[in-house]
Amino acid sequence: MPVGTNATVKAMTPEDLLAVNAQIILSNTYHLYLRPGHRLVEKMGGLHKFMNWNRPVLTDSGGFQVFSLGELRKISEYGVKFQSHIDGSRHFLTPELSIQIQEALGADIIMCFDECPSSKANYSYVSSSLAMTARWAKRCKEARRREDQQLFGIIQGGMYHDLRARSLEDICSIGFDGYALGGLSVGETKEEMYGVMDVCAPMMPNDAPRYIMGIGAPEDLVEAVWRGYDMFDCVMPTRNARNGMLFTSQGRINIKSKAFEEDDGPLDPECGCHVCQNYSRAYLRHIYRAGEILASNLNTYHNLYYYLDLMHQMRNAIRNNNFDGFRRDFYLKLQCNSII
Amino acid sequence: MPVGTNATVKAMTPEDLLAVNAQIILSNTYHLYLRPGHRLVEKMGGLHKFMNWNRPVLTDSGGFQVFSLGELRKISEYGVKFQSHIDGSRHFLTPELSIQIQEALGADIIMCFDECPSSKANYSYVSSSLAMTARWAKRCKEARRREDQQLFGIIQGGMYHDLRARSLEDICSIGFDGYALGGLSVGETKEEMYGVMDVCAPMMPNDAPRYIMGIGAPEDLVEAVWRGYDMFDCVMPTRNARNGMLFTSQGRINIKSKAFEEDDGPLDPECGCHVCQNYSRAYLRHIYRAGEILASNLNTYHNLYYYLDLMHQMRNAIRNNNFDGFRRDFYLKLQCNSII
Repeated sequence: MPVGTNATVKAMTPEDLLAVNAQIILSNTYHLYLRPGHRLVEKMGGLHKFMNWNRPVLTDSGGFQVFSLGELRKISEYGVKFQSHIDGSRHFLTPELSIQIQEALGADIIMCFDECPSSKANYSYVSSSLAMTARWAKRCKEARRREDQQLFGIIQGGMYHDLRARSLEDICSIGFDGYALGGLSVGETKEEMYGVMDVCAPMMPNDAPRYIMGIGAPEDLVEAVWRGYDMFDCVMPTRNARNGMLFTSQGRINIKSKAFEEDDGPLDPECGCHVCQNYSRAYLRHIYRAGEILASNLNTYHNLYYYLDLMHQMRNAIRNNNFDGFRRDFYLKLQCNSII
Repeated sequence: MPVGTNATVKAMTPEDLLAVNAQIILSNTYHLYLRPGHRLVEKMGGLHKFMNWNRPVLTDSGGFQVFSLGELRKISEYGVKFQSHIDGSRHFLTPELSIQIQEALGADIIMCFDECPSSKANYSYVSSSLAMTARWAKRCKEARRREDQQLFGIIQGGMYHDLRARSLEDICSIGFDGYALGGLSVGETKEEMYGVMDVCAPMMPNDAPRYIMGIGAPEDLVEAVWRGYDMFDCVMPTRNARNGMLFTSQGRINIKSKAFEEDDGPLDPECGCHVCQNYSRAYLRHIYRAGEILASNLNTYHNLYYYLDLMHQMRNAIRNNNFDGFRRDFYLKLQCNSII
């Protein structure tokens, strides 16, 4: 799903998001709590109305951003003390406050407040951390007041397969509306990432959505869906777009490249998006180099279209009972890549 | 008309420009000559195709930007030597080259290469400058090869009424498809600007478009139309939008202001634009403060809608033979301003 830090997906209007068939947006609790504040968003009628988006919204718990603050935060059983990256002001985020904020923001899916340990954390740290995450998950469930939101639990455990299994059992035994794998895409190898997907998939409930947080590259989504996961969020399509890195059916291209200077062809000849239908690579290169805001708009539009179309193709392949064939073709096309 | 420096109006897509009823875009010859180069644009099928815009385009002559370079340029009868602001490369822009560039870019309306003297230039400088501008205008007309473009002459003369009259006579006697006043909005007072409009209007041909270059504030457009001028270009609606300064029927507002923190009303209650229909002042303030690209998109959209709607209202008032009434109401509303 497209990721919207400040109650907007960067460089996109809600109409753009509808046009690329976005079904759901992720909004960041940490950012909205600090600015403009969840009480203001609530007063303005909630996130949907505030940002003019009528389709579903998911909010994260704020945990991931807070743990990313490094020196600016301190963890205890009760919660996490941190200082704002904007003005240095001091805050205390607890499982209960995270749920209160998410209820005020009014998303359709809200997430439990979890600890996401560093990718370098050792076995004993990860082991005690996931126990605390389970206690926090229980507190989140108890703190919940709104029945119209879906509350998802988050499974941690780092790259340790037995700890993933233990966390999964802990979280599932509490019982949530959906289940997420946290703590991936934090610097691990693809083998490690796919290994965690492999070990968790057979143990996850079959009657609830399975969400992997923070992934990933197109091939990561294919691998995750192949292993039975349903939902994903990632900054990659939007952030890379703003840096000129574009996803195509033949692989990634860097639109800044001199190779595209006089290229009047579309970005991706196989893509049906508005950008590929109306603009040349030469034009996209020109406006990127000139620093035009339109470059961020068009590049982001295309990358989101690519990602959401990929998910659409995967849903179709599953419906047609042809996911293996789809996956083979996906990799074949990447290998025939002639334009990088 | 909206101004597009790098073959795009900043923060707008062509669809946005259609939605705000833009009839024509101005593209800058200076910028496009340096990057990506007029020959590249020509090879890509011309400006319209390059930037995906099917309605009319006007290119300026490049003169104004070159003269703004200060120390980086040197003027002679033959033309202007200058150094690129991008890479310091050396160039020589002449009336003939300006026309060649504009023919390669392929706009619908192209402009004569003129000298635009500093607002501090004295009488004798302006007097000899406008004589050279007339000689350059002749050379532009002779250099012209394409008959499918409209070529406009430019009247200079600074704030000296007799020099304006002389330049007007010079340029009109050469004969062009339209006539522009250059050298306004260069630091003069409103009285001086309106004075030049006053003195030139009765002498301008009645059967050709009258264009004032580089203006202006909404009230400047009202004053210019009242005096018989037809066309205008200005960065004000787009540049101010990106700085959070928004035009409304009740006057200008600064969207950054704390006054709008919890304001769930539309930017301009009288405005029918998509932004005023779908977003609150509180949201526009939030995304501006968060540095979101969407703030530039939405603010620019609104300001352009405001300007183009103002022009539309003026055309209607003229058709209904009620321009005096329109002008009175325009100022009355500004005076009732309750939101600045």
